[in-house]
Amino acid sequence: MIDKRSPLPIYYQIEEDIKQKIETGLYAEGEAIPSERELSEQYEVSRMTVRQAVNNLVQDGRLYREKGKGTFVAEEKIEQKLSGMTSFTEDMSRRGMAASSQLLDFSVIHAPKDVMEKLNLEAGAFVYDIHRIRLADEQPMAYERTYIPLELFPELTKTAVEGSLYHYIEQQQPHKIHKASQVIEATIADEEQVDMLGIPPSSAVLYMERISQLADGTPFEVVKSSYRADRYKFISDIYRT
Amino acid sequence: MIDKRSPLPIYYQIEEDIKQKIETGLYAEGEAIPSERELSEQYEVSRMTVRQAVNNLVQDGRLYREKGKGTFVAEEKIEQKLSGMTSFTEDMSRRGMAASSQLLDFSVIHAPKDVMEKLNLEAGAFVYDIHRIRLADEQPMAYERTYIPLELFPELTKTAVEGSLYHYIEQQQPHKIHKASQVIEATIADEEQVDMLGIPPSSAVLYMERISQLADGTPFEVVKSSYRADRYKFISDIYRT
Repeated sequence: MIDKRSPLPIYYQIEEDIKQKIETGLYAEGEAIPSERELSEQYEVSRMTVRQAVNNLVQDGRLYREKGKGTFVAEEKIEQKLSGMTSFTEDMSRRGMAASSQLLDFSVIHAPKDVMEKLNLEAGAFVYDIHRIRLADEQPMAYERTYIPLELFPELTKTAVEGSLYHYIEQQQPHKIHKASQVIEATIADEEQVDMLGIPPSSAVLYMERISQLADGTPFEVVKSSYRADRYKFISDIYRT
Repeated sequence: MIDKRSPLPIYYQIEEDIKQKIETGLYAEGEAIPSERELSEQYEVSRMTVRQAVNNLVQDGRLYREKGKGTFVAEEKIEQKLSGMTSFTEDMSRRGMAASSQLLDFSVIHAPKDVMEKLNLEAGAFVYDIHRIRLADEQPMAYERTYIPLELFPELTKTAVEGSLYHYIEQQQPHKIHKASQVIEATIADEEQVDMLGIPPSSAVLYMERISQLADGTPFEVVKSSYRADRYKFISDIYRT
């Protein structure tokens, strides 16, 4: 498999070989690849060379290491389109994945200052504070906090929140969801996110904040989501004008 | 300033007070705020309480710590729109910032496999490999590697790359830039990125990959950019259909 007389560096040839084994399913998602020792015997190269190939694939997110356990094949990241305004539930079901939520908190609080400003509320106004872990096929994907003005949906219930919130809102006449503005940032997971998402300390996180509005321009939610960066990526098409 | 009989937690009141001092410019961007000891004397609260307020503001990216130096007011992040297809040079000049590039490498290589596939090239095809640090007002913002098929622009020069590449391409008849697809991910900076961007080890990075095409559908570039997550965020508007 490895051609030592090729102009291509050995570590690169090993990388390509491992990638191919992932693509053909010989190395399956979530399963361990052989140890560095085994790979160096198999390819008849030094462990240094194997390590360079494996490091590059870890860096690219194709493999990941678990301390004391070995090196595993990463699952493909979920591609989230940045064009249409869809809910997590809708996104997952479109992919054939089962969306679910673990509701950590559902309460009514005074709007924190930044939420108050983003929702155009008066000081002291009440909002629902909805704290959820979003899961796809029972794997935690995002840790999310949603704020919704109490006065807009005075009858919002836990049950509605456990299903698709957008579906609920669109059934409440005359409310029609129109658009949202989103901000995407990269952060390092804090302790809470590490616990809630079950990711290693100091992992990268994709942080998204969404402010959504109804057709009449009323902002109706602020959503602060922390997505696992090892399982999620955002995609968008852009046009030259 | 602090009302100990208020139902709002003390640390929250301190957070709000510090934020206001940032917004009014009393604490200036890039400058140190008082030490925890000074703040605890000033607010007449424990250092624990001050630390909680400061930690929250660090977590929110409003403040940042430098080891052994103190806690500083973060600069506002640059907001990069995800709608129009613009170049780094165009983005920065629109903001009134001076864009520049530090060209690290400009060479012609055999296309790496993933680039070959993304650009629909034959095996062995040549591409320009353009390695740049992108700077705004002389501060490094992104570490970028661009691949362009040699056969499309056989006369591409270093000088063209040092200016606006899109501008150059659009001057080459009959090439018209049409669209691009982008992927956004969050990663942890590797050693190279830490060095090139001058950021602390293990910082978060916004990774963007762009594949761009001409009006006739020919893919003409693959760009792999690593943006400093402490200085950059992406924004987009989305619509409910």
